[in-house]
Amino acid sequence: MTTPPPAEIGMALEDVDTPALLLDLDAFERNLDRMAKAIEGKPVKLRPHSKSHKCAVIGLAQMARGAVGLCCQKVGEAEAMVAGGVPNVLVSNQIVGRPKLLRLAALSKQAEWVGVCADHPDNVTQLDEAAGAMGTTLNVLVEIDTGAARCGVEPGQPAVDLAKQIDSATNLDFAGLQAYQGRAQHVRSYAERQAAADAGVALTRETVEGLKSAGLECEIIGGAGTGTFQFETAGGVHNELQAGSYVFMDADYGKNLNEDGGFFDDFENSLFVFVTVMSAPTEDRALVDAGLKALAMDSGPPAVADMPEVEFGRASDEHGILDISRTNRKVGLGDKLKLIPGHCDPTVNLYDWYVGYRGNRVEALWPIAARGMLR
Amino acid sequence: MTTPPPAEIGMALEDVDTPALLLDLDAFERNLDRMAKAIEGKPVKLRPHSKSHKCAVIGLAQMARGAVGLCCQKVGEAEAMVAGGVPNVLVSNQIVGRPKLLRLAALSKQAEWVGVCADHPDNVTQLDEAAGAMGTTLNVLVEIDTGAARCGVEPGQPAVDLAKQIDSATNLDFAGLQAYQGRAQHVRSYAERQAAADAGVALTRETVEGLKSAGLECEIIGGAGTGTFQFETAGGVHNELQAGSYVFMDADYGKNLNEDGGFFDDFENSLFVFVTVMSAPTEDRALVDAGLKALAMDSGPPAVADMPEVEFGRASDEHGILDISRTNRKVGLGDKLKLIPGHCDPTVNLYDWYVGYRGNRVEALWPIAARGMLR
Repeated sequence: MTTPPPAEIGMALEDVDTPALLLDLDAFERNLDRMAKAIEGKPVKLRPHSKSHKCAVIGLAQMARGAVGLCCQKVGEAEAMVAGGVPNVLVSNQIVGRPKLLRLAALSKQAEWVGVCADHPDNVTQLDEAAGAMGTTLNVLVEIDTGAARCGVEPGQPAVDLAKQIDSATNLDFAGLQAYQGRAQHVRSYAERQAAADAGVALTRETVEGLKSAGLECEIIGGAGTGTFQFETAGGVHNELQAGSYVFMDADYGKNLNEDGGFFDDFENSLFVFVTVMSAPTEDRALVDAGLKALAMDSGPPAVADMPEVEFGRASDEHGILDISRTNRKVGLGDKLKLIPGHCDPTVNLYDWYVGYRGNRVEALWPIAARGMLR
Repeated sequence: MTTPPPAEIGMALEDVDTPALLLDLDAFERNLDRMAKAIEGKPVKLRPHSKSHKCAVIGLAQMARGAVGLCCQKVGEAEAMVAGGVPNVLVSNQIVGRPKLLRLAALSKQAEWVGVCADHPDNVTQLDEAAGAMGTTLNVLVEIDTGAARCGVEPGQPAVDLAKQIDSATNLDFAGLQAYQGRAQHVRSYAERQAAADAGVALTRETVEGLKSAGLECEIIGGAGTGTFQFETAGGVHNELQAGSYVFMDADYGKNLNEDGGFFDDFENSLFVFVTVMSAPTEDRALVDAGLKALAMDSGPPAVADMPEVEFGRASDEHGILDISRTNRKVGLGDKLKLIPGHCDPTVNLYDWYVGYRGNRVEALWPIAARGMLR
């Protein structure tokens, strides 16, 4: 039930079978370096989100450039990262239900540091019970809702109350605040994106001060994504950034605007879905062998790399329809193309392997070990 | 990289960990029986599409009720079905590129019958070469475009020309027509859906007659889906129906209308995504632990089983947001709910296991062996 790799090390890129998830290693490494440089000397650390890449090899490359650990969204993701050698994982999410809580507690005995978020008193009680049952202590952050209207308690006093409960629990350590403004990430306008992020920072600051008044210090104040990390960095409250997509970029983040009005290009596209033209029935239409099961379409269709005049239209389960009416280049049966995913995270989750290449040669086959780890 | 099963045989349904893909075995078996009964005595056979279920256990259950074999959309899907005991597979799609063509030819030596579709002279040449290289003969159908504007040659003379090329190729047998009207399946109005299907049937009939005049007989004239199979059955041209979704149904097919103006209810929902409420931050909002990586959203969000007054709104990677403002029932932390997927096929592709249950007890763990088989 694991699919075989679509390539062999040393193979020429054009020989890679399709659909395949390609990683341009040069571009990927430049993205890692760019992020490290962007926060160099700033009072923030990077804790990149592994939900984007689901691959411990990539996580360790991030840590080699200064990341303090990884974020995970599921216990299974955290287990896969720890099994792959990542020593420090924060589950930046709520974990509910005894089987998962026991697994999380057990993991904390294998890794150097394991943390998790909570936003409900009952969940705190369950976390305490599970940690006690496994004879360990769990680090728990209070998640606050800084404007995303998803999970999280209200900033201010409700967060302080929950932190007190954690602090007084036998088997839990209060570890800080989870303050991620998910909705701000894809706001296209720079000024509006900044305003949304800044509003989140203000709510976080207010909560940190409330906690201080109650005698509670935050070891971690985490949040931010690829779309807003510069604002949380400048905000001076967060001390950990949780960006994930910066390693790959995707078509959706590429629609955000920078301060100068140009498109967001702080990072470059390193991730591609490699496809083959499998049918070319008319002058204006070509079909590629990647559809809904090979490309996440939730944030819009992929872009065709190096061919902006070719539009990816509808996708069905296993077909993608290209409009080739406006290109002068031939797009014929058997041609291979690189697509820039609309949304990298759920696209990665459809594959078992990264095919890493440099120039025109396959150099790495990295397992996407947390693919499908929903629990 | 295969995820562990979320349940154990004999377990009570409420103890299944989430997210999990549940299969109500009673409803599933009723759907199989309904389809068998719907075509009983008609001059059509069923060749259900395995792209919906990707599971040989289900394919064999379909064959036990009279199906002649399965459709597959990828070589890897066909390999998984044959490995699971299915003897007869039609790849109802174009296969392009030598590695896949050699695998397909090799598979034809292991299975009782393997077929594939073509819509381009160059692809026919490549199929012939691959079959020759592996010392076998491949059965090839000509795909015609009956209105879906996806793959396929034009009906009529272009199809006859391609069939002649197949017929005269050394290592290929001409096996008939692939005539699937994909666009018609989800047309909501019964009359418009019928008109689209009937137009496809007329184009197919014209092509079959053209082939006859050229001395070419069609062993298989395949097409139809869950939305239109009754029209192709009545059309009297198709002899194989390729419906797939009928085994599960989904929220999208449930929006089609029947002849009497009611919703399409010829089959019942047997497939569910089991989820847990992981956050309940406000009176009107609950978060479940299934988002874009656990639910295909391309055809709209899932419905909440037995709670039509609860609306599934946005999904992010690992969160689904429920609007619980209009329900009188409590939806609290830790509660488990069944969701009816918006689109079953790409949802199934996100899981490794079916958790089959009867009443309140887990009875089966079936591997989704073709999950992720994109090549």
